[in-house]
Amino acid sequence: MASQSISALKTAKSVTEGPQRQLLLPAPYLVFLGNARSRADLKTAMGLREWAPDSCLGQYRMHPDVPGIGLPDLTFEAARKNGAKSLLIGIATDGGRLSESWWPDLRAAVRMGLGIISGMHQSLTTVPGLAALAEENGCHLIDIRHWQPPLTVGTGSKRSGKRLLTVGTDCAIGKKYTALAITRAMAERGQAATFRATGQTGIMLAGSGVPIDSVISDFISGAAEALSPANAQGHWDIIEGQGALGHPAYAAVSLGLLHGSQPDYIILCHQPGRATLDGFPDFPVPSLKNAIEINLAMGQLTNPHIRCAGISLNTAGLTPDERADLLERTADQHGVPCFDPMVSCLDPLLDFLL
Amino acid sequence: MASQSISALKTAKSVTEGPQRQLLLPAPYLVFLGNARSRADLKTAMGLREWAPDSCLGQYRMHPDVPGIGLPDLTFEAARKNGAKSLLIGIATDGGRLSESWWPDLRAAVRMGLGIISGMHQSLTTVPGLAALAEENGCHLIDIRHWQPPLTVGTGSKRSGKRLLTVGTDCAIGKKYTALAITRAMAERGQAATFRATGQTGIMLAGSGVPIDSVISDFISGAAEALSPANAQGHWDIIEGQGALGHPAYAAVSLGLLHGSQPDYIILCHQPGRATLDGFPDFPVPSLKNAIEINLAMGQLTNPHIRCAGISLNTAGLTPDERADLLERTADQHGVPCFDPMVSCLDPLLDFLL
Repeated sequence: MASQSISALKTAKSVTEGPQRQLLLPAPYLVFLGNARSRADLKTAMGLREWAPDSCLGQYRMHPDVPGIGLPDLTFEAARKNGAKSLLIGIATDGGRLSESWWPDLRAAVRMGLGIISGMHQSLTTVPGLAALAEENGCHLIDIRHWQPPLTVGTGSKRSGKRLLTVGTDCAIGKKYTALAITRAMAERGQAATFRATGQTGIMLAGSGVPIDSVISDFISGAAEALSPANAQGHWDIIEGQGALGHPAYAAVSLGLLHGSQPDYIILCHQPGRATLDGFPDFPVPSLKNAIEINLAMGQLTNPHIRCAGISLNTAGLTPDERADLLERTADQHGVPCFDPMVSCLDPLLDFLL
Repeated sequence: MASQSISALKTAKSVTEGPQRQLLLPAPYLVFLGNARSRADLKTAMGLREWAPDSCLGQYRMHPDVPGIGLPDLTFEAARKNGAKSLLIGIATDGGRLSESWWPDLRAAVRMGLGIISGMHQSLTTVPGLAALAEENGCHLIDIRHWQPPLTVGTGSKRSGKRLLTVGTDCAIGKKYTALAITRAMAERGQAATFRATGQTGIMLAGSGVPIDSVISDFISGAAEALSPANAQGHWDIIEGQGALGHPAYAAVSLGLLHGSQPDYIILCHQPGRATLDGFPDFPVPSLKNAIEINLAMGQLTNPHIRCAGISLNTAGLTPDERADLLERTADQHGVPCFDPMVSCLDPLLDFLL
């Protein structure tokens, strides 16, 4: 599974998509690993390596002790000659800062004609001299977290094509991974499908998307509508969910995305054994039944035919027997396919959907 | 009723409120009526005149044909001498543009030492030379629509004090007016209460608040929490609602505000006879019962004791008999006080709440 890219899925182009309504990342990338001390700092880079290998020309390490991700080491010059369009920052830091130790390399990359893509909180424009160099060299500086789509209010109007949205009982519970796995499984069946990214990592993997939690509240449904524009009748948009409707901090993001996505189907993502919301110990994780009901109740506003198509469980730590038992019991209890996207065959889900 | 100001209510200070977590407007104001052709252009100015007369020193008209709002005409110089701190733009334009015909006056006001407060979409910083003049003269330029609170994620933690939030079956259905009327009625009973503004007009009337629909989605609950910080046990925050949970464009704003406000009570605002959402003819206005249920169901996340305290109806156009009949029937049907804040005595509601 890990050897197949989702870039194959990008052939299914939307019929109305304009270039400016989504953030588009110029590929292929040279992946910047900086001065990472361990692979724990390189989750973004490793996700790229797994889900978008065709977009990754090589890796750049500041010194040989930095762990690699299995791509060829390239200088900025070599990467540029091989057709790289962007240096993509694949290393995470505390607080999302652009480490001062990287600055000389970022400037050198731009001087060589590479644009830069960053998912950090700190904007690339705060690196002294970088913006001027980028202008001089005709290079893009893309801050994924700072990008705003055009300010468009939602309409609620029905769009053609099929849509599936992953939703969750909490944040960080498998919504992106589930959407990626479903998109890949559909592609393997020859089904036209597009992964629609709503978070910075997803956008890096897909090469396009809308960072939905950065959108000004008034325009969130409009931004979600733009993310999955009208498409061919048989085409599927598989939309990466965000947050959870039962989350005291992020429910608004989830609701705007649900309304704007107008999904035909939701998949509920859940981690068995998680008792309280991550980082919010006073808030219990809702039951699967409640989480499904509230998503369907709210989603009916923009798609009266919304249905739950399955439950995605993170079963890491269970034995194969325990896993099989849990998946079967959960499927029986809720009357929908239940799977772990890391290990399960998704055929039952696809049979249900297609 | 119209003769009493809500500024009297500002004595009830929050115990934890920092100056930076809400937008604060330096008063008193000289109200800029510009070149308005009719009072229809002057809704903001007239709202100020009614709800915050103590904050309005005078009016400024560009020529004598402009309709006044009953305040003394003052030059910039006279206003400054009388203690005015800001020129407040009280005229509306199509598309929220700062008319070029106003620019010389805006510059002249700043030269005289007046800051400027604007609720327009177009930023004051786009008026050529204005920002430099403001810096030179130590004057504030406040764009209410562009202001962002500190980026604080919601916590869902319970805060002390009582909170009431006005919610609606649609946008533009009386949520601001209802909150203002309840705040005033409480003040008349000697009850400590603060109107908490979430929209640009409300913020102008209150002199502070958070323009909630301008907040970045990820931080909307956090911004709503900051709007009504922990307060004395007996103090009431009366929070101006926005949008509607059943609205395809704006439900996310409503949900973030509901979760962050953690109201003890909601008041549902409705306009009898409105069949479809304003500007969204494909979306029916929900029933009162459904609108109450969905607000209580979602609001329970951050306040399990949330209750509906009443229904506010806009009964304009009904005869007194029709109105009395409708209010009585609605109150009976839903088991809560029902009133029209423009005409009803609010004693039954206050008896219910206090």
